[in-house]
Amino acid sequence: MLQDLALYGYWRSTAAYRVRIALALKGLDWENHPVHLVRDGGEQHGASYRAINPQELVPALVDGERVFTQSLAIVEYLDETVPEPPLLPVDPRGRARVRALAQTIACDIHPLGNLRVLQALEARFGATEAQRADWNRHWMAVGLAAFEAMLADNVATGTFCHGDEPGLADICLIPQLYNAARWQLPLDAYPTIRRIQAECVALPAFQVAAPERQPDAPPAGA
Amino acid sequence: MLQDLALYGYWRSTAAYRVRIALALKGLDWENHPVHLVRDGGEQHGASYRAINPQELVPALVDGERVFTQSLAIVEYLDETVPEPPLLPVDPRGRARVRALAQTIACDIHPLGNLRVLQALEARFGATEAQRADWNRHWMAVGLAAFEAMLADNVATGTFCHGDEPGLADICLIPQLYNAARWQLPLDAYPTIRRIQAECVALPAFQVAAPERQPDAPPAGA
Repeated sequence: MLQDLALYGYWRSTAAYRVRIALALKGLDWENHPVHLVRDGGEQHGASYRAINPQELVPALVDGERVFTQSLAIVEYLDETVPEPPLLPVDPRGRARVRALAQTIACDIHPLGNLRVLQALEARFGATEAQRADWNRHWMAVGLAAFEAMLADNVATGTFCHGDEPGLADICLIPQLYNAARWQLPLDAYPTIRRIQAECVALPAFQVAAPERQPDAPPAGA
Repeated sequence: MLQDLALYGYWRSTAAYRVRIALALKGLDWENHPVHLVRDGGEQHGASYRAINPQELVPALVDGERVFTQSLAIVEYLDETVPEPPLLPVDPRGRARVRALAQTIACDIHPLGNLRVLQALEARFGATEAQRADWNRHWMAVGLAAFEAMLADNVATGTFCHGDEPGLADICLIPQLYNAARWQLPLDAYPTIRRIQAECVALPAFQVAAPERQPDAPPAGA
């Protein structure tokens, strides 16, 4: 059903990173179309990318002639068209739990630390680099504390966020933890998250999706 | 399957408003548990609500003994347990489109103008009331322009955002437009959105879910 998949993304975009993990878990090949979010004021704002995604955000997945946007919608699309391995449980309660975990990151952490928001804090309020970093860490700390509480003391938590296979919640968690490291947020307060992180990063699908493995990433040490 | 539904919300929370519309479209009865987001520093931060939702955000839906959080996850849970009328199309491409529209609002507009974020802008950067309003309008204008572009020139757009029955995208759109009015954002630039808004607000399910119709809303003119 899927044909000629092309992903418009950016090596360090955590939303694109989610889709890369899902594609890898499903064993799908895709063509990489890097969109440089910083160079020349941001290629995502140019006419050619705006024709693909009027939101001027990455990622966008092209499947044949159709364009799909919003990382969580893309991951569920992949899950509905390529059922194995499943990224959501089959029972409605489990599906609701996994989606709530994913949205805790995708709605309530990630958008607040997104590039365009940090740029607006600087432009509108003169936020310094240190203040922007602190803003970002604050929302990550608030959100990850809730995420940890939702994992701990819940019998549905297994080797991964929900059960013993990786799924949509893990797909959102690992890129957010990459951002946490980038912004020097300590993870000591989140033992369940750290345990699950160790499980995920041992898997090839998470490894090949990592930012530093993407062709548009700068060379190590650059 | 659903039993003794109770919704923890707030009359003016647009995320709770989404769930109220979905409950009304499904014809479900529910018990109202208002959580006052402002009084006494915010009841959502108190121990009793934190035990229900560690994110300290509304809404939370209680179904029997189980708690569900995150409005989009709740709406999909309702859709999976009470299939009629459907809130998502059956085909994966259509489902992905509707979810992307919903997430354009739920991930990229609403979180940036949420109460806690506006409070943080004031506390951290001394943002004035006018600056906070302008911040809020900015992200609404950016997001609604993209939403309009995703609706216009797409053959899947019908009487409503997707086809001729209201669904998840409309459920997100109408509360966001309530917020747009509250913050005086003109809607002239979004003709398709305005056309769909007129269709939605004519429906009883959208009317009974409106903020001013909730028992915790202050009396008109107060």
